[in-house]
Amino acid sequence: MQKDSPAASPDSASPSDSFLALQKAAREIGAVRSASGLLGWDQETVMPEKGGNARAECQAALSTVLHEKQTSDALWGLLQNAEAHASSLSQRENALVRELKRDTENARKIPADLAEDLARTGSLAQQAWAKARSASEGAGSAPEFLPWLKKMVELKRREADCLGYEESPYDALLDQFEPGARVSAVKPVLSTLRDGLVPLLERVLAKKSEPLKAPEGLVPQPLQHAFNERLLRDMGFDLEAGRLDASAHPFTQGMAPGDVRLTTRYREDDWLNAVFSTLHEGGHGLYEQGLPNADWGTPLGEAVSLAIHESQSRFWENRVGRSRPYWEHALPVAKEMMGEVLSGETVDSVLFRVNAVERSFIRVEADELTYNLHVLLRFQIEEAIFSGALEVEGIESAWNEGMKKLLGVTPPNAAKGFMQDVHWSCGLFGYFPTYTLGNLYAAQFASAMEKDLGSLDTMIRAGKLSPMREWLRDKIHKHGREFPAAELCLRATGKPLDAGYFLKYLEGKYLG
Amino acid sequence: MQKDSPAASPDSASPSDSFLALQKAAREIGAVRSASGLLGWDQETVMPEKGGNARAECQAALSTVLHEKQTSDALWGLLQNAEAHASSLSQRENALVRELKRDTENARKIPADLAEDLARTGSLAQQAWAKARSASEGAGSAPEFLPWLKKMVELKRREADCLGYEESPYDALLDQFEPGARVSAVKPVLSTLRDGLVPLLERVLAKKSEPLKAPEGLVPQPLQHAFNERLLRDMGFDLEAGRLDASAHPFTQGMAPGDVRLTTRYREDDWLNAVFSTLHEGGHGLYEQGLPNADWGTPLGEAVSLAIHESQSRFWENRVGRSRPYWEHALPVAKEMMGEVLSGETVDSVLFRVNAVERSFIRVEADELTYNLHVLLRFQIEEAIFSGALEVEGIESAWNEGMKKLLGVTPPNAAKGFMQDVHWSCGLFGYFPTYTLGNLYAAQFASAMEKDLGSLDTMIRAGKLSPMREWLRDKIHKHGREFPAAELCLRATGKPLDAGYFLKYLEGKYLG
Repeated sequence: MQKDSPAASPDSASPSDSFLALQKAAREIGAVRSASGLLGWDQETVMPEKGGNARAECQAALSTVLHEKQTSDALWGLLQNAEAHASSLSQRENALVRELKRDTENARKIPADLAEDLARTGSLAQQAWAKARSASEGAGSAPEFLPWLKKMVELKRREADCLGYEESPYDALLDQFEPGARVSAVKPVLSTLRDGLVPLLERVLAKKSEPLKAPEGLVPQPLQHAFNERLLRDMGFDLEAGRLDASAHPFTQGMAPGDVRLTTRYREDDWLNAVFSTLHEGGHGLYEQGLPNADWGTPLGEAVSLAIHESQSRFWENRVGRSRPYWEHALPVAKEMMGEVLSGETVDSVLFRVNAVERSFIRVEADELTYNLHVLLRFQIEEAIFSGALEVEGIESAWNEGMKKLLGVTPPNAAKGFMQDVHWSCGLFGYFPTYTLGNLYAAQFASAMEKDLGSLDTMIRAGKLSPMREWLRDKIHKHGREFPAAELCLRATGKPLDAGYFLKYLEGKYLG
Repeated sequence: MQKDSPAASPDSASPSDSFLALQKAAREIGAVRSASGLLGWDQETVMPEKGGNARAECQAALSTVLHEKQTSDALWGLLQNAEAHASSLSQRENALVRELKRDTENARKIPADLAEDLARTGSLAQQAWAKARSASEGAGSAPEFLPWLKKMVELKRREADCLGYEESPYDALLDQFEPGARVSAVKPVLSTLRDGLVPLLERVLAKKSEPLKAPEGLVPQPLQHAFNERLLRDMGFDLEAGRLDASAHPFTQGMAPGDVRLTTRYREDDWLNAVFSTLHEGGHGLYEQGLPNADWGTPLGEAVSLAIHESQSRFWENRVGRSRPYWEHALPVAKEMMGEVLSGETVDSVLFRVNAVERSFIRVEADELTYNLHVLLRFQIEEAIFSGALEVEGIESAWNEGMKKLLGVTPPNAAKGFMQDVHWSCGLFGYFPTYTLGNLYAAQFASAMEKDLGSLDTMIRAGKLSPMREWLRDKIHKHGREFPAAELCLRATGKPLDAGYFLKYLEGKYLG
C-alpha cells in the first residue's frame, strides 16, 4: 500500500515519528533481502534441478525491488528527516541512521548502467573463468581469460570512482566488505603478519612428526549428521532457530536471528570433513543468532563486517575445534555416536590430520598457518592493480613470483595459480583480505576472552563452551552494526587490531 | 532499475514493443509471487520453529510489493497501450492482455483500507474461530464467534460491491476463485447434482458389505516416502522438476513448471493415508508442471481456476486411485517396496477402506459421494447470506436443518457443524463450491478421455498412465488461462459442464 510519495519536510513530523517511519522502511528492505536470502539457501539445498531458470528470474525481480527501495527518494527524505532530528535520538538510533545512510548513499552512487554491466560481465566472466581454468590445466596458461579480467577491473575502477575514496581506489572496494577499512591501516598489520609468518613456517616445517593414519571404513551420512548437530548444540547453536543441511559448498544463511541455516558437506570416507565445515559455519551461525532480534531488518540487526563475521567462524573452527582439549572431550562422543568405524581413531590421529602444515598451491585446502600467506599475496596483487602499479597482463607472473617468495612453491599452471578462485571473475576485489583479518580478530578476541574468563583450554576440555559463546555474544554479536569493526575490537579487547596475537597463537600451537 | 514512469502514449511504441513491455512487467509480478510461494512452502515444511515472526514480515513486505506493482499506473498504461494494439496481436497475446487486465482491475478496485481491514479481521477472526470452535465442543454452541463472522460478512459485502457484479453480490466472490462463474449458471448444475445424490446415497447405503480389516503393524516413513515417489513417477510427475515432502496439511506449491512441490502426510499405522494425499497433490502437481513454461510468470502460465485445478487432483485421487484396476497394479508394488507388514493386504481390503460410504459430520473426512453434499450445503448457505435471505445469526440452524435434509444427521455441536472449517473466518466465501465443481469437471473429462483413448480401466490395470496424463496436458494444462474454464470444458469435452457424468460415475462405481 505504501507508495513513493514525496518526503515530508523536516519539521512536519515529530522526532520519534520520523525515526519510526525510517525504521519501518529499513525493515521492509530487510524483509525483502531476507526473502532473497531464502531463495538462495533453497537453491543450494533442496531446489529441484529444473527450477534454476525461474529461480534466476525470481532473484532478479527481488534485486530490482531492493534497488528501487534502497534508492527511492522516499527513503532519502526519511533519512534527511531523521538526521535533522539527530539531537533528540539515542546513540543507537543515530547509529541506525548513520548505517542506513551509508548503505543508501552507496546504492545511489552506482548508476544503473554500471550496476547492470557489473552483473552481466560478472556472470559471463564467471563462465569464461570456469572454461579457461580447465583449459589451463593442460596448457599451463589461459590467455583467453585476460580480456574478461581486464573488463572486470575496468568496471571495478569505475565503481571505485563512483563510490569515492580519499587515498586509494582500492579503499572504496575494501570498504564494501569491511566498512571503514583502508589500505593505509590494513597494510602495516598485514606486513607484521607476513614478517612473522614466513620464518615461522620454516621453523614449523623443520619440526618433523610421525604420520598417523586415518581409520579405514565409511561413516554413513545420517550418523554424521546427528553428530554434527550434537556439536552445534554443544556450541549453543539453537536448532529451533536454525537448521543444518547438506550442500556442495558449505555456507551460512541468516534470514533472521530465529532462522539461521547452516550447511555442511558430508564425505563418508572422511568424517572430519563435515565436522570442520560445521564448526566453521556454526561460528557464523552463532553470530547471526546473537544479533539483536528487535533490530532485525535494520542495519543494527546486521553483522558489522565480513572480517568480524569470519573471526567468529575461525574462532570455533580453529581455536576451539583444532585444539587438543576439544578432541579430548569430543572424540568419545564421536565414537559413541558413530560406532565401530572410529575405534582406531585417537586424539593424536585426529589432531595429526587437522593440524598438518604444508606448502601448497590451493588456498581453500591450506592449513591454518599457510592459508594467510595465500591471502597476503591476493592483497598485495589487488592493491597493486588498483594503485596502477600492476597491469592485468602482469598478474600471472606477479602471482608466481609471490608464491615462490611467500610459500616457496611455483604453481604448475594457472588453475593451481592465480585462476584457482572464482572471486575475481565476479568482481570480488577487496574480499580476500577479510579472511585473514578474521583470523587476526579471532586470535585477539580469544586473548581478551581468556583474560576475562580464565583458561579457555580448561573450559573446552570440560565441554563447557557456553561462557565463550556468551562472551562473544556480549562483546560482538549483540551490537550489530552499532560500532564499526575497529571500534568494536577496541571495546572488546582494549587494543586496536594487532597481528601479534595471531602470531603468538600459532607459535604456541605449532612450536609450544 | 525499472521505475514507475508515466505510461507512454498508445502511439509511441510499436505493437510488439508494447506487448513485450507488458509481458515483462507481468513476469516481474509473477516472479515476486513465485518468491512469496517459496516462502510459504518453506514455512510449512522446513522452517525452524522460531522463524515465524520474521517470516510473517517477509511475506507482508512481498505482499506490499505485489500490490504496488499490480496497481501501479505504469502497468495500467502498458495495458492500455497493448489494448490499443489488439488487432495486431495474436489470439494468445490478446488473452494475456485480457487476463492481466482482469487481475489488475480487480486489484485496483479494492481500496487500501478495505484490503487492510480484510487482512486484519481475517487474522483475528481466525484466532477467534479456533478458540470458539474448541469451546463449542463442550458447550454445544459458540455465540462469541458470531460478531466476527458478522464483521467478515460485512467486509465481504463491501468487497463484492467494490468488485462489482451484474446479478448477485455472491457472483463477485465466486468469481475470485472461479473466474466467470455465476450463481445463475452454477445453481442449476448443483441442483441436478443434489437431486441425484440424495437418493443415490440411500441406495448405496442399503447395499451392505462385510467389513475387511486393515493389516496391523507400522510402515516406516522412509519406506512410504519411496513408495509415494514411485507412484508420482508412474503418473508422470517429474521429480527433477519438483519434490515430495511431508507437512501437517498436504498442499501443492507450484513456483514454476520446473519447480513444483508437493507435500503429503505420513501415518506409520495407516500407509494409505499418505498415498491418497500424494495422488491428490500429484494431480495438482501435474497441472502445474504442464503449464506452458514459456509463459511462466504471466496469466497464460497460470491455472485457469480452482475448480479446474481440483478436477486434476480429484481425477488422479478418485477416478484413478480409488479404482480396482489401480490397486491390481499398485498393490504388488506396494508389497515389494514396503515389505512384510502388508502381507495381509488384498485389493479388496484396500478398496473396502478407501471406498467406504457413510453419513458423517466432517467434510474433510467424507467419502467421494457424501463429500459433495457437505459442499452443496455450504453453497446454499453462502448464497442465502449474500442474497440477503439469511442473517449470520441464522446460519447455525440453517446448517443443522440442511445436514438433516441432505445427509440425515444432526451435528452435536458447532465444532462438528458450521464451525468445522476455517474458511469463513478468513473470508473465503465462494471457495467451497470449487471443490465440487472440480469433481464434476473430473468426471466429465474422464468420460471424454475414454471416448478418445478407449477404456481407462484397461490402461490403469496395465499401469499405463501416460496417455491419460498426455490427454490432460493437451486439453487442459498447456492452455494456462487462455480460455475461461467454461470454454475449456466445452473444447475438451464438447459439452458444457453437466452433473450427469459424475452421477453416472458414482452409480457405476457403487452400484455397478
